[in-house]
Amino acid sequence: MKIPVMEVFGPTIQGEGMVIGQKTMFVRTGGCDYSCSWCDSSFTWDGTARSELLEVEAIIKKIKETGGEYFSHVTISGGNPALHKGIGELVDRCHEEGWKVAIETQGSIWQEWMKEIDDVTISPKPPSSNMKTDFEKLDFYVEQLKDRKFSLKVVVFTEEDFRYAEQIHVRYPKVPFYLQIGNEDISTTDDEALLSKLLHAYEWLIDRATKSTIMNDAKVLPQLHTLIWGNKRGV
Amino acid sequence: MKIPVMEVFGPTIQGEGMVIGQKTMFVRTGGCDYSCSWCDSSFTWDGTARSELLEVEAIIKKIKETGGEYFSHVTISGGNPALHKGIGELVDRCHEEGWKVAIETQGSIWQEWMKEIDDVTISPKPPSSNMKTDFEKLDFYVEQLKDRKFSLKVVVFTEEDFRYAEQIHVRYPKVPFYLQIGNEDISTTDDEALLSKLLHAYEWLIDRATKSTIMNDAKVLPQLHTLIWGNKRGV
Ligand code: SF4
Ligand code: SF4
Repeated sequence: MKIPVMEVFGPTIQGEGMVIGQKTMFVRTGGCDYSCSWCDSSFTWDGTARSELLEVEAIIKKIKETGGEYFSHVTISGGNPALHKGIGELVDRCHEEGWKVAIETQGSIWQEWMKEIDDVTISPKPPSSNMKTDFEKLDFYVEQLKDRKFSLKVVVFTEEDFRYAEQIHVRYPKVPFYLQIGNEDISTTDDEALLSKLLHAYEWLIDRATKSTIMNDAKVLPQLHTLIWGNKRGV
Repeated sequence: MKIPVMEVFGPTIQGEGMVIGQKTMFVRTGGCDYSCSWCDSSFTWDGTARSELLEVEAIIKKIKETGGEYFSHVTISGGNPALHKGIGELVDRCHEEGWKVAIETQGSIWQEWMKEIDDVTISPKPPSSNMKTDFEKLDFYVEQLKDRKFSLKVVVFTEEDFRYAEQIHVRYPKVPFYLQIGNEDISTTDDEALLSKLLHAYEWLIDRATKSTIMNDAKVLPQLHTLIWGNKRGV
């Protein structure tokens, strides 16, 4: 089965979430059922870039050509990779090669292969995204993954987003929970100004989380790659 | 049993290692059997600050007074907390209160209570510290903790440190492994210059790790608190 691939890059580090810091390859798939106002990968769905429709074997080959012997972990990102049935086969092939696989999805579309993935991050989108969370679907997702290694992550831009994050964490109290600062300026090339903005936003989010009893067991993280490389793609 | 306590602070976030981002309280104990050249907590052992010798109940009280209802996780740091037998009682009391407990130690002194701790980070010190690793002791440590949730972390300043880190990871291949950038300028108050230095060092370490097949399954992390707050203490 073919999968639309936007880019394959790495090895680099995973900059966010439950496997933050992990040395990994990235496979970015095309297409998303959402259109978040602040999407930092909108080229995967807004028509400004083209994907390549590839067979799983061709993707495996591309990963090997790009990463050589220098990786043992693959992150599938998007867009929303859960759009593509064929990823099940890709995950199996990665496992055959001895690689671990991580994924991130907003939790709007279920795929059975989700259960085969080593680290699943579900990242429901807060109000500032202008998207609406379908809580029935999210309940189903969490229920399906309950015996697996997975986490919930909410990107926070505003106080309203923070209260949404609290609501999510309260709804699924046993699921490891991550707060992440949003990047408000996804197009700037002024890395220094961006860095200062991001660190201030991060400090605000830490402060906000320390004042919330609901967040006592949360983890609060930045996007490491944005701190280092700004809005540069493919690093 | 009494424990020498340097400071109790929080809630804030854990800035490094296996529970990076975790909202937590900190209890910093006094004293260390090492004297690393670049120690960022040398006030715990070099005589420039005084600890307070406290009963476990007094420490629990202090944690509650400082953190109120705003935490459920406690990190014990040092110095080397493994110097103190009394910490076993402190860990038990924290668990009775419903708090999880994390610790970091260089792995030079074993204590049975180590097995009761939720997240143990063993951080053997690389050549640039001027300390010598006792590998027999480290082997024993890793063996004792083998069925528990623990990790190894090596701070890297130099290429020689990096090769030491590889040696550690090869010796204990199944233990989750973290690389961390060192802070070369532990006294500066020029936060902006420090930040730039730390991010460049981090970029170097990522690049170095991506070029090492040994590090394929490693995690590479900065110290988040230093990125945000520089060398400020108690945050
Ligand atoms: S779900 Fe993710 S990829 Fe899709 S629009 Fe939102 S941020 Fe972008
Ligand atoms: S082991 Fe830790 S506390 Fe002790 S001297 Fe070294 S860096 Fe400092």
